[in-house]
Amino acid sequence: MVIDSHAHVIFPPERQIQLMAEAEVDCTILFTSTIHPETATSLESFEAELNKLYDILNGVTNPLNERIRAIKELTTVIERNPEKYIGFGSIPFGLSYKENLEWIDKYIVANSFRGIGELTPGSGKIAEIEPLFRASQEFGNLPLWVHTFMPLNYEDIKELLLLAKMHSTVPLILGHLGGVNWLNTLKAVKEFPNVYLDMSATFTTMAPSFAITEYPERTFFSSDAPYCSPLTARTIIEQLVKDRHVMEQVLGGNISRLLKI
Amino acid sequence: MVIDSHAHVIFPPERQIQLMAEAEVDCTILFTSTIHPETATSLESFEAELNKLYDILNGVTNPLNERIRAIKELTTVIERNPEKYIGFGSIPFGLSYKENLEWIDKYIVANSFRGIGELTPGSGKIAEIEPLFRASQEFGNLPLWVHTFMPLNYEDIKELLLLAKMHSTVPLILGHLGGVNWLNTLKAVKEFPNVYLDMSATFTTMAPSFAITEYPERTFFSSDAPYCSPLTARTIIEQLVKDRHVMEQVLGGNISRLLKI
Repeated sequence: MVIDSHAHVIFPPERQIQLMAEAEVDCTILFTSTIHPETATSLESFEAELNKLYDILNGVTNPLNERIRAIKELTTVIERNPEKYIGFGSIPFGLSYKENLEWIDKYIVANSFRGIGELTPGSGKIAEIEPLFRASQEFGNLPLWVHTFMPLNYEDIKELLLLAKMHSTVPLILGHLGGVNWLNTLKAVKEFPNVYLDMSATFTTMAPSFAITEYPERTFFSSDAPYCSPLTARTIIEQLVKDRHVMEQVLGGNISRLLKI
Repeated sequence: MVIDSHAHVIFPPERQIQLMAEAEVDCTILFTSTIHPETATSLESFEAELNKLYDILNGVTNPLNERIRAIKELTTVIERNPEKYIGFGSIPFGLSYKENLEWIDKYIVANSFRGIGELTPGSGKIAEIEPLFRASQEFGNLPLWVHTFMPLNYEDIKELLLLAKMHSTVPLILGHLGGVNWLNTLKAVKEFPNVYLDMSATFTTMAPSFAITEYPERTFFSSDAPYCSPLTARTIIEQLVKDRHVMEQVLGGNISRLLKI
């Protein structure tokens, strides 16, 4: 079973199914998307779509409403093709322990989502995720998916790994493999078996190449669609990995074991 | 003719030829490499190789000697397979106009290199390239290849584009498409026909996708090998571009026209 372990909702939904078919992906772990850059046909319309995101980040548009709307959008897409998708639900950043519990109950568990993310902390803000690690434990250790490319630096990533160490039952997925800090990240995660590595958005194939060699059981194929097509993301992995068994694990076995798919 | 417009010397040289053959690349624009990370087989040996680079950057190893050694290495590799390679020669950063002329004469023109790079300015240091633009004009407008991913920010890229505007006969190749600033970079280069776009090291395929749509005659396929394999880099482009004519231009026609290959 080939599983794209990280993609965002794409419009129209038929296009997402088509992209999965092109890449022969059986199942996608689907995340919300408050904007839809894939609908842009020019630089201008792409920027207009990005500006919607900045409006949310700057509070021009109500971020809570937009998040809830995106979660509804995600559940609708999954309901149409429940055999093709597993959802991860988003959560506002920096909630208290109690608020995290309430949100997870109302928006994650109630929607049968199997994990939480994409979390996009700012640099210097990692400590604010700590209550979420504890809340995840309360709900049977829901995996947390954290964006670790820019704006995070390696100090932030180390702090995040420390939280994973303190809450070693909670699976932590490092989105984008630490970004430009991929080498230090790969060295650091050795001692943290609850930390997993998402291989999307890599600007050098040396990063996933070493990641798979060092951690064949903890690395996940993912497209981060619409930011890369599932076919291209899969091809990159297939051109890197020679061992057939390792390939099967990276393309689906590892995430399948984690989520008990 | 398929041309990989940017790759570094790989050891052993037979491996480079093999990677080109796998990707059906006819010709590679070859750049120096002071270190050889492709020879590393583990995280530890990869880091040891990177440490050699830090020793050069920190002056522990003489940077001038290392640069001259790498240029000799490049000429040796090209001499073995002159029909497969065209060289771009490196130059120390921040030379005066006169020093630039001397270096170009001695190490670029004397080796029949067809361009200059990879230039890797630090943030805030762009102005130091200005004499090199003038020196390039003295030698028939040798193209300059500048790394524009980290550590450059968009202010640096704008300053670089201003230099290109002031020296509009000198072709400027923006290596890695502006990195995380790709969208602003694509918007900015519209008015500068002497600016070209290298599409290696992109962490989202949206960047080369829009780049090719907007500038089908100014975008270059490149691997930045050993940081990506030529086959993977070519596959990414082939999965993005539908138009056959555009594909031919991006895979070789555009750089061929610029360098009169």
